[in-house]
Amino acid sequence: MAHKLALIGFGVVGQGLAEILVNKKEELKTRYGFEGKIVAISDLHKGSLYDPNGLDIETLLSIVRETGKIDSYPDTPTLVRGWDSFKTICQSNADTVVEVSYTDVKTGQPAIDHCKAAFESGKHVVMSNKGPVALAYQELSELARKHNVRWGFEGSVMSGTPTIRLPLACLAGNEIREVKGILNGTTNFILTKMEEGMTYEDALSEAQRLGYAEADPTADVEGFDALYKIVILANVIMGVPLKREDVSRQGITALTPEDIAQAKAENKRWKLIARAKKEGDKVVASIAPEKVPLTDALAGITGATNAITYDCDLAGPITVVGAGAGKTETGYSILIDLINISRGQI
Amino acid sequence: MAHKLALIGFGVVGQGLAEILVNKKEELKTRYGFEGKIVAISDLHKGSLYDPNGLDIETLLSIVRETGKIDSYPDTPTLVRGWDSFKTICQSNADTVVEVSYTDVKTGQPAIDHCKAAFESGKHVVMSNKGPVALAYQELSELARKHNVRWGFEGSVMSGTPTIRLPLACLAGNEIREVKGILNGTTNFILTKMEEGMTYEDALSEAQRLGYAEADPTADVEGFDALYKIVILANVIMGVPLKREDVSRQGITALTPEDIAQAKAENKRWKLIARAKKEGDKVVASIAPEKVPLTDALAGITGATNAITYDCDLAGPITVVGAGAGKTETGYSILIDLINISRGQI
Repeated sequence: MAHKLALIGFGVVGQGLAEILVNKKEELKTRYGFEGKIVAISDLHKGSLYDPNGLDIETLLSIVRETGKIDSYPDTPTLVRGWDSFKTICQSNADTVVEVSYTDVKTGQPAIDHCKAAFESGKHVVMSNKGPVALAYQELSELARKHNVRWGFEGSVMSGTPTIRLPLACLAGNEIREVKGILNGTTNFILTKMEEGMTYEDALSEAQRLGYAEADPTADVEGFDALYKIVILANVIMGVPLKREDVSRQGITALTPEDIAQAKAENKRWKLIARAKKEGDKVVASIAPEKVPLTDALAGITGATNAITYDCDLAGPITVVGAGAGKTETGYSILIDLINISRGQI
Repeated sequence: MAHKLALIGFGVVGQGLAEILVNKKEELKTRYGFEGKIVAISDLHKGSLYDPNGLDIETLLSIVRETGKIDSYPDTPTLVRGWDSFKTICQSNADTVVEVSYTDVKTGQPAIDHCKAAFESGKHVVMSNKGPVALAYQELSELARKHNVRWGFEGSVMSGTPTIRLPLACLAGNEIREVKGILNGTTNFILTKMEEGMTYEDALSEAQRLGYAEADPTADVEGFDALYKIVILANVIMGVPLKREDVSRQGITALTPEDIAQAKAENKRWKLIARAKKEGDKVVASIAPEKVPLTDALAGITGATNAITYDCDLAGPITVVGAGAGKTETGYSILIDLINISRGQI
């Protein structure tokens, strides 16, 4: 039976998912019995469509590429236009809400309210937004449990690199005593360029030119992006209700070429390390530049790549390395949550 | 309900598992609802015990530590002694056979026959032996399916580092176009020491002194150990019935200090790379020393640590790094298979 999806938002991630559903249609059906059918899209700027029998994904993609909107999607006898996000969530026949709206990470809205509406109407939610997980994990996961639905957010940390599912599915039974990682690709790219001899300013310009850094790079270079991610990992993987204000934070803007050279002389490399460590029954968390010895798996992570090390009491330190962003990678993070919801797996 | 286990073999891995079951008893029950009860142990040299009501694990461990055998385990009204492995597999009331016998990797025996007996009597099997998976994956997995039981072998590649479960549970939906890795800790330790200036001979002696290499190091340094592991990954992860004779193999014994120095000058490092790559509809596999650029995640893997990179069409390259051996780590590999069998997860 097809898994019916309502997409709240149709930007980069939503389109990335839609492209995968088209390109991998037969393979997903044959190998995993998974058939994703988009029944609704509600996007504040691009328009809203609902057809309980399913929308044609190739048509949607070609229209949005040509016009930037979905309004010119052709009429069908069962097509409804103009539903807002909440009406789409509550009244569509979707099994799962794919929450990929533009969301303010500082408030987690409107995604938090979208989650609540979905859970209360008996629908699963899959998302890649960090805000709702970082700010409302305890409350939302409880609400999902109460309504017997699932909440997937693999993409909230390192896009399609399985930083959430790996520990839950593959490292169960371990006590994870520490999580530390390079959770922001922009800063790691800048630090790599500084090691190659660039100044901070030139490295930042290069990152902006390549699209790794935004015009206002504050969220990345001052460590806010990584901060949200370590809060998610502490809550979900370590089971501790850490809040963002509990995390000490320092970015990379104060690092000088002299600092870089000194680390090199000590056989170390500066990395912006996100860290959450159990101390007694609480977790101490920080974002800070650290000099990492070259023997540490994290020292070898260069460019925009991300990595996390889970310090497990039984399996030892386990590190996963992969992309931290990207249209297809983040689209994939939604897909893996959907596949595992549909096959009843973690 | 307790998950009843019959251990075939009670060497390092079996004892590693037993220690975890004692030390983590309450935590496993509370967090995963998992209670492992050892009802039988059959070991060619240490003796055989079967008690349908369960053996006392702490007593077993203290006896084997003191005497090297389990014969002096105290009598109980329901205790039976002396059953061989096949009788234990077929006639005990175990849910799962933990196959940790001493097995010849070249023939996969007696573990292959133990698997068959277990599946045919409706029991799951969990193991860390490479042989049966490398030599008989297609046949045994088919037999397990037919009898509606599970076969877990996470520990057959990189002990408790989840090289099997990670792609199956967390990377589903990707086509994995290539698997490449450092799958042998002994050779990676030797190469790391050679980079630090040692000759091959001195590095090998050091590895032997530290217990990383055996007196006859052939299986490691000539690449046989890595070869079995890449065969497993090709079969299980890439779904291709690759056989060991299909893999080209070259060890590290011919590498000279000059080779090491030259790689360094090129910003590269020699690594013994196990590789399986899709080319058209077949897989080409090799074990060979390769000069890996320092920008590759595998270049930073030093000492006895292992790592694998899965080249995924959607998620991009995903690398997992961790221990490749160890008593607790391999004991854990058995535990994670047991937990996931008992909770109905991959």
